[in-house]
Amino acid sequence: MTQKAFQDYYTDQLSYCYGCGRLNEHGLQIKSYWDGDESVATFTPRPYHIAIPGFVYGGLIASLIDCHGTGTAAAAMYRAEGRALDTLPPFRFVTASLHVDYLKPTPLGAPLEVRGVVKEIKGRKVVVSATLSVNDQVCARGQVVAVQMPENLLPSA
Amino acid sequence: MTQKAFQDYYTDQLSYCYGCGRLNEHGLQIKSYWDGDESVATFTPRPYHIAIPGFVYGGLIASLIDCHGTGTAAAAMYRAEGRALDTLPPFRFVTASLHVDYLKPTPLGAPLEVRGVVKEIKGRKVVVSATLSVNDQVCARGQVVAVQMPENLLPSA
Repeated sequence: MTQKAFQDYYTDQLSYCYGCGRLNEHGLQIKSYWDGDESVATFTPRPYHIAIPGFVYGGLIASLIDCHGTGTAAAAMYRAEGRALDTLPPFRFVTASLHVDYLKPTPLGAPLEVRGVVKEIKGRKVVVSATLSVNDQVCARGQVVAVQMPENLLPSA
Repeated sequence: MTQKAFQDYYTDQLSYCYGCGRLNEHGLQIKSYWDGDESVATFTPRPYHIAIPGFVYGGLIASLIDCHGTGTAAAAMYRAEGRALDTLPPFRFVTASLHVDYLKPTPLGAPLEVRGVVKEIKGRKVVVSATLSVNDQVCARGQVVAVQMPENLLPSA
């Protein structure tokens, strides 16, 4: 895709997240995009991201759903207000709760596709449900309750 | 502590988990122990394990609760059957579901303490609740539903 990802609009100071910060060189650097009404991110686990040989580590799956969820929450809030992603003040979200159901072992090797659906926007809260699939087979489902970041945690630049 | 951790009893083939495998050189290598009726693991995040500067990445917190939960589940099953951790056949658990409530931002720099409490043992399922604290302040609570690993995924050696 040639469009910019949700996370590409984050300010530099908010771009060091281990899961999705484009400036965290040790991190996963996931990138989320709109695909119609859903959001999508793909990530190919590294060989060491395993739980048992041949299968993806559940903590990585939780991390992908988490960051894709907060990114989707921010983008959804912009969309709900009819604003472009690069307009100020920024909407940035943190995770209030994360739930993941591991439906089956997730095979290692192919890209993981995380798809998000916005279930609710209410005040400062956005609820995003997510599926994680490999080769179109859903291996995990999750839900992220994201809340707008408190202003005292939001760097000004 | 000089005692062996739950994870130190895992066979080599089950010791490559990114979260708790002692043989995964890229991983977190967390170690869990009994402390009376509770289980405890401590982990000091690396400088790049951040969500926003100064605060711990939520996906790492989920990963710690996940692996500490499955490790506690295995140890609890051994204990419930009056067996030592090094006896065969092994009890190994995978995560069926993971839930984390992030109560407050978790400051980076100090060791994180994850404490687990076994809530239920029923058939092949063990439910473990967990808290994650920094300097005795609880920053996150979680729950892991762990199920005994299917025999077809359990390496024989």
